[in-house]
Amino acid sequence: MLTDVEIAQQTKMEPIAEVAAKLGLSDDDLELYGKYKAKVSLDTLKKVENNENGKLVLVTAINPTPAGEGKTTTMIGLSQALNLMGKKSVVAMREPSLGPCFGIKGGAAGGGYAQVVPMEDINLHFTGDIHAITTANNLIAAMLDNSIQQGNPLDIDVRRIVWKRCVDLNDRALRKIVIGMGGKMNGVPREDGFDISVASEVMAILCLATSLEDLKERAGRMIVAYSRSGNPVTVNDIHATGAVTLLLKDAIKPNLVQTLDHTPVFVHGGPFANIAHGCNSVMATRLAMKLGDYAITEAGFGADLGAEKFLDIKCRQAGLKPDAVVIVATIRALKMHGGVDKKDLSEENLEALKNGIENLRKHIENINKYGLPSVVAINAFPTDTQAELELLKEICEKDGAKVAISEVWAKGGEGGLELAETLLDVLENEESHYHPIYDLDLSIEEKIKTIASEIYGAKDVAFTKKAKTALRTLTKQGLDHLPICVAKTQYSLSDDASLLGRPEGFTVTINDLIPNTGAGFIVAISGSIMRMPGLPKDPAANHMDINEDGTIVGLF
Amino acid sequence: MLTDVEIAQQTKMEPIAEVAAKLGLSDDDLELYGKYKAKVSLDTLKKVENNENGKLVLVTAINPTPAGEGKTTTMIGLSQALNLMGKKSVVAMREPSLGPCFGIKGGAAGGGYAQVVPMEDINLHFTGDIHAITTANNLIAAMLDNSIQQGNPLDIDVRRIVWKRCVDLNDRALRKIVIGMGGKMNGVPREDGFDISVASEVMAILCLATSLEDLKERAGRMIVAYSRSGNPVTVNDIHATGAVTLLLKDAIKPNLVQTLDHTPVFVHGGPFANIAHGCNSVMATRLAMKLGDYAITEAGFGADLGAEKFLDIKCRQAGLKPDAVVIVATIRALKMHGGVDKKDLSEENLEALKNGIENLRKHIENINKYGLPSVVAINAFPTDTQAELELLKEICEKDGAKVAISEVWAKGGEGGLELAETLLDVLENEESHYHPIYDLDLSIEEKIKTIASEIYGAKDVAFTKKAKTALRTLTKQGLDHLPICVAKTQYSLSDDASLLGRPEGFTVTINDLIPNTGAGFIVAISGSIMRMPGLPKDPAANHMDINEDGTIVGLF
Repeated sequence: MLTDVEIAQQTKMEPIAEVAAKLGLSDDDLELYGKYKAKVSLDTLKKVENNENGKLVLVTAINPTPAGEGKTTTMIGLSQALNLMGKKSVVAMREPSLGPCFGIKGGAAGGGYAQVVPMEDINLHFTGDIHAITTANNLIAAMLDNSIQQGNPLDIDVRRIVWKRCVDLNDRALRKIVIGMGGKMNGVPREDGFDISVASEVMAILCLATSLEDLKERAGRMIVAYSRSGNPVTVNDIHATGAVTLLLKDAIKPNLVQTLDHTPVFVHGGPFANIAHGCNSVMATRLAMKLGDYAITEAGFGADLGAEKFLDIKCRQAGLKPDAVVIVATIRALKMHGGVDKKDLSEENLEALKNGIENLRKHIENINKYGLPSVVAINAFPTDTQAELELLKEICEKDGAKVAISEVWAKGGEGGLELAETLLDVLENEESHYHPIYDLDLSIEEKIKTIASEIYGAKDVAFTKKAKTALRTLTKQGLDHLPICVAKTQYSLSDDASLLGRPEGFTVTINDLIPNTGAGFIVAISGSIMRMPGLPKDPAANHMDINEDGTIVGLF
Repeated sequence: MLTDVEIAQQTKMEPIAEVAAKLGLSDDDLELYGKYKAKVSLDTLKKVENNENGKLVLVTAINPTPAGEGKTTTMIGLSQALNLMGKKSVVAMREPSLGPCFGIKGGAAGGGYAQVVPMEDINLHFTGDIHAITTANNLIAAMLDNSIQQGNPLDIDVRRIVWKRCVDLNDRALRKIVIGMGGKMNGVPREDGFDISVASEVMAILCLATSLEDLKERAGRMIVAYSRSGNPVTVNDIHATGAVTLLLKDAIKPNLVQTLDHTPVFVHGGPFANIAHGCNSVMATRLAMKLGDYAITEAGFGADLGAEKFLDIKCRQAGLKPDAVVIVATIRALKMHGGVDKKDLSEENLEALKNGIENLRKHIENINKYGLPSVVAINAFPTDTQAELELLKEICEKDGAKVAISEVWAKGGEGGLELAETLLDVLENEESHYHPIYDLDLSIEEKIKTIASEIYGAKDVAFTKKAKTALRTLTKQGLDHLPICVAKTQYSLSDDASLLGRPEGFTVTINDLIPNTGAGFIVAISGSIMRMPGLPKDPAANHMDINEDGTIVGLF
């Protein structure tokens, strides 16, 4: 069995200009980054603005389990299959963060025969977008501390600085730090911390911006601290807006790469899926819709977080109208949701599967609530039994959901034909009546309650004292019209990671509310959300290497 | 008068593939980064290995003053002039660090009509080399702290960690920090600090490496900490060598850009000129020599630091044989060396000039000591008087030095013809008998004393108690065969920044000695060396911006 990196390295890539030509793009539309990566120029985005929109399809999944779902792999394979059928399909997906690659993950550009290449580059520095975000984020921090050092004209309260520094690595020792030590010449001492770069609001605004101008406006609005009298201090206030936008001038341009079948993929932007909205950039999604007849995209984590934010934040803000949703599940993961231990997943267990399917059924119901047709994609594993597959099909179809088995990991585009045909059938015969799940003019509290009851299936929402204070402050500041970005565990529909399947009767607790005024949403924090991962005992980095002839090992 | 960025933006650049073609490079040799930047593949470096070497010319300067010397500008203009004369000249220069651009500098890619373009990109993220270095440096730090967190199998002494984190920004609040706070899950508390990325030893090894394999060996040798029993802990010991090399796989490839005249320039690597050796990469310099008949390069700060390290470290390690040295001076700067205040520099002052020229004379003498012919380039200013220029010429020529007036800032290549002709004359008629100033088999103490007496003109060298202990330890560790990299003020030939001109009778004090085993030198610290600059009260970043149409302001 070949590893992902071996499969990727065996593939003879097409020059990216040839891949671009399939979309009608010429050399003038591209800024090459080596032979196999390109950025699409902002002029091109303007040029295609009046093209007709292709169909927009979101690929999402059940709540993730340690068994794995293969959402990204399925998305890539689906697009490969559509192209194999002669359809013009384009993927718009997130770009991976470096940190987790060196930790546990090893890589994140699909798997098996459904991959995006050059996977080594995509998983490493790629076209430098995340480095630009890191730099912009940290320039803001440096200018903020410099303002305090140089007489503090904005009267910034060093106890109420909300802007953190960031690094695109898993580095737990930087979570909580004290900076500005060593005397008068070395800044003002204060508590600080580093987040991983993809958790920075700069990543969120890059992904939601519709133009360079919009990006600049969003950047300027971001809150970095509060003054001693409690007023928000923004990026505009510390005069960093122009420099930050300048640093992001190339990062904002969508990146074009290819699948193993040489079909086009935009890989652009990758915000956290808990404290941010977890979707690739609006500009890449739009470009995929303008250049393809089918734009296939994804959102982080399961449908309760990913699809909810895609539909309530990204599509609403950007005026996108999705046409269908694919929900990815595996028999193994559903059995885990049904209570089976990871070590016993290879054994047939129809009873557990039946219980676990309740998780999937809830997500199908939810997608219905948004007025959207859905297709269930069963990402097949060799250990799945015929009886298990039939039971899953039977239950879903009883609910009126279309089901298709996907074998894209093992077979690439060929393995996705059943899924592609099912999707095309749905797109042809079922209409999208997409609408968000809540209205923006509801109060913050009502919006959160709507998400919790309608999407998570919660009985109630509790607000801690801190959250209640924040509710009042945000309403007073006139920010109650913003949509909500819930930060909660991805492993459960509830806010308790241990409640698998389809929990009921639970209360979601909101601990805090944080305004992300640049991104244009309010983050509702449920539980404790990790913004800076750590490295495991034996990190993937320990096993990475490159030989003199350029052969790479340890990325998988 | 146009600003630098305006002049740069008025220039219609040639596609970089056309610039490369002038060097005999085809598309297969290049990895494009947009239309106007390219990396040269490692295969190409191997392919040209047996080409005959072009002449290697170092451009250096007198000790810098606030009046400015224009070393980089002169180097670029000189190469433009040589090309104008039909010679095949290639520049190999350092890439600018982002931090100072946002601080005081605003940019560092030449000036006036002797610039390297696209200057906006070169001054911002360029091809991502420094971001790769930052990431590699910080991955080492994260893996080091992770090793301590996960049971500390190497028995690392948290009080003796010598590896710092880094960021490519001016951020004084990060100079001295405490990390690992917040309890057991968040690492082990210890003192730490951030250097600016170009001060990282990773930058030094990238610049001194002769191949990817050599880079990997150097990376593995770097010392990150000491164990509680006093043994060095290296990058190899924490298993980070492979991942670090992988992160640098593209950064090691030289970057090709162009002058305003569309002549080729390699911009690659930019280590600090005090705690590191201050020269662009060996690979870029070699490539310039293999592809050009004339390779024009530079080294940071004045000749006492830059030229000394170029000749004693870089050329010796890489087996390069330089052919001539250009020493850049301005009438204004020489008058400052002669005691004139910055505000009075526009007035003729022959007496002060005469005194100031002593600084230049010392550098001419020094270059002679290396067995190398030299040319003095007077970088002309409108305020220079005829009498001043004649006096300068007269004194230099009395010493046997050739002098040429350069007006490249105002006139580009045309303004460098006199300098180019003088240089060609020297290259034709004077032979290089290059040899380093000290032998490697001298003791560390003797090597430092040789540099101080021969190059700085010091009477003696004093070693503090700390430095004496380090001398003994390094000798015991068998590191006494390494060359010396002195970290001292750039403003004076001495270690006292206020001693301008040609000070005499002074003693240089060495406070500490730090082994850079990857770079392959011992840093001798004289005085306190700033490894992390701060932002000024009104940073350049405050005035930077980019408009919707892509026009950039504030880079200059």
